Amino acid sequence: MNPKIERLIKQFAKLPRVGTRAATRIVFELLQNKTGKAQNLASALLDASETIHPCPICGVLTENTVCEYCSDVARQNGCLCIVRDISDVYVLEKAGIFHGRYHVLGGNLSGVSGITPADLNIANIADRIKNENVSEIIFALPNTVEGKTTQQYIMSTVAMPDVVFSELASGVPLGGDLDYIDDGTLMLAFGDRKKL
Amino acid sequence: MNPKIERLIKQFAKLPRVGTRAATRIVFELLQNKTGKAQNLASALLDASETIHPCPICGVLTENTVCEYCSDVARQNGCLCIVRDISDVYVLEKAGIFHGRYHVLGGNLSGVSGITPADLNIANIADRIKNENVSEIIFALPNTVEGKTTQQYIMSTVAMPDVVFSELASGVPLGGDLDYIDDGTLMLAFGDRKKL
Repeated sequence: MNPKIERLIKQFAKLPRVGTRAATRIVFELLQNKTGKAQNLASALLDASETIHPCPICGVLTENTVCEYCSDVARQNGCLCIVRDISDVYVLEKAGIFHGRYHVLGGNLSGVSGITPADLNIANIADRIKNENVSEIIFALPNTVEGKTTQQYIMSTVAMPDVVFSELASGVPLGGDLDYIDDGTLMLAFGDRKKL
Repeated sequence: MNPKIERLIKQFAKLPRVGTRAATRIVFELLQNKTGKAQNLASALLDASETIHPCPICGVLTENTVCEYCSDVARQNGCLCIVRDISDVYVLEKAGIFHGRYHVLGGNLSGVSGITPADLNIANIADRIKNENVSEIIFALPNTVEGKTTQQYIMSTVAMPDVVFSELASGVPLGGDLDYIDDGTLMLAFGDRKKL
């Protein structure tokens, strides 16, 4: 195979959720296409990578100095929602259930993948608590070992007497059939059962 | 969400085997990355799209006037293997079982997807038969309704008395457990059973 094509396939295969097979299909599709699909994609990517950067406060991608959520005066101050990825911010915004400020970690601590606190956007949480008079931190992290470890680490490093920590409830999802729910979730749902 | 990011996600989501979810992950990953991953990908894509084009004879992607397979004098003339996609050529080459010439259609006829003979690289098959003294055409197309329809169409349009047509055998794959084989394949395998 042509070395340029091979290199391009390798670059695409490194993207999240794309393997070598999909990368091969993508590259062939782009290079066979005569309508300039490859050029359009390349120029859109260049343009975006030059103008868009993570917000220095929360980590959401933005074209401006500060992102739309951090600069929105209508949003509630004092409540910080910590999420793993930028996409989680859009999920929560789409649901319209949170009106405070976000903080994107950019990942979770993981011994297996070698992700340490220095790799994550953790250092400035303490500053944000002071600057923004944060009184509650809501952890909206994945319900996994990595998510819980990250949560514990942040709680131990930014512990302050006047900051309340909370996490999303665990349990059976809406419409969830007990047949399809794993034992761990069932145990949590039993433990946290609500009085009626 | 920022309109530039949204547009980029839409462009990635149109690539084969990439949906909106994967495209979102890819775009966030590229734009958050500080090591120039987005710029590198964009420039590799631009470079490849400017220098690489389908071979005018067979359709394989190449940097040269004619591809490595059509220009290889060591390859056997007179036997043409018709495949659907460029990736099929690499699959066959990796297996090392065919040493003739290839012909890439770039798809299969499909009423549902609206793919007509004009969309495929079919028109010059007749010329190739004459110019290259082709005596056998091997169809290595998918074993699907679309693949068989395309095969029938090509056989009816390029029919010549001295050209033999053949197709890959259907049956149980090596290591195939009968439990996991569909009824259609089993029927074909029974019908084409070999005398011992």
